[in-house]
Amino acid sequence: MKILSIEHIAIAVESLKKGSNFWKDIMGLEFKKQEEIPNQGVIADIYKIKNSRIELIKEKSPNSPISKFLKKNGPGLHHVCFEIEDIEEAILELKSKNINIIGSSYNIGAEGYKIIFLHPSSTGGVLVELAQKV
Amino acid sequence: MKILSIEHIAIAVESLKKGSNFWKDIMGLEFKKQEEIPNQGVIADIYKIKNSRIELIKEKSPNSPISKFLKKNGPGLHHVCFEIEDIEEAILELKSKNINIIGSSYNIGAEGYKIIFLHPSSTGGVLVELAQKV
Repeated sequence: MKILSIEHIAIAVESLKKGSNFWKDIMGLEFKKQEEIPNQGVIADIYKIKNSRIELIKEKSPNSPISKFLKKNGPGLHHVCFEIEDIEEAILELKSKNINIIGSSYNIGAEGYKIIFLHPSSTGGVLVELAQKV
Repeated sequence: MKILSIEHIAIAVESLKKGSNFWKDIMGLEFKKQEEIPNQGVIADIYKIKNSRIELIKEKSPNSPISKFLKKNGPGLHHVCFEIEDIEEAILELKSKNINIIGSSYNIGAEGYKIIFLHPSSTGGVLVELAQKV
């Protein structure tokens, strides 16, 4: 598998407004856009950073994975997303190496990217997203 | 404050060898070097990625902050580090905005960078490191 870059870091928040108070007003990041990702039950504020992005993610539907995360852990670092060249090739490779993929194939994430998540049980406790730009 | 890039993402691990099994063998990242950071009580394996780095951090001394983190949370995402231009200017700015900085001034981190950590209570739950290259 060929990792091209850190595509984004996702941070679970209870309030996008409070997130903006820190990441935009204090840290000086540039707000890029807001996006809903219905199949993950989240709404995301995307901030630009020179070589990557920060995504603040908030629950949109009450029983989304992000709601469960917030209940268990509170707000904070949620996952890291790496851009890869070929997601179908990566899925085959990861399955052959017994890596626990969430779902059986890729989904469509923010900006229409093809995405999968690797379960923390296979990664040393980190929720890892892989994304192929389309 | 001017953020230049995501300098690294730090992941707390119980074993650097197991970390290598995933991040090097499965994810294909290039191992750069190992470094001890005595004033943080950690040892770090640093992996290169095109636009950034992944640091696997493990306790070196038994009562380090990383030991406490592992006891409380288990292995996983620990902090994110942003490269900034001028750390002394950033510290003044952050203090004037009542952001909770850990320690009163900067420390020397991996690769001799000037670093500070922002307390999660001021950042929406994220341990944020700022680093100025020297």
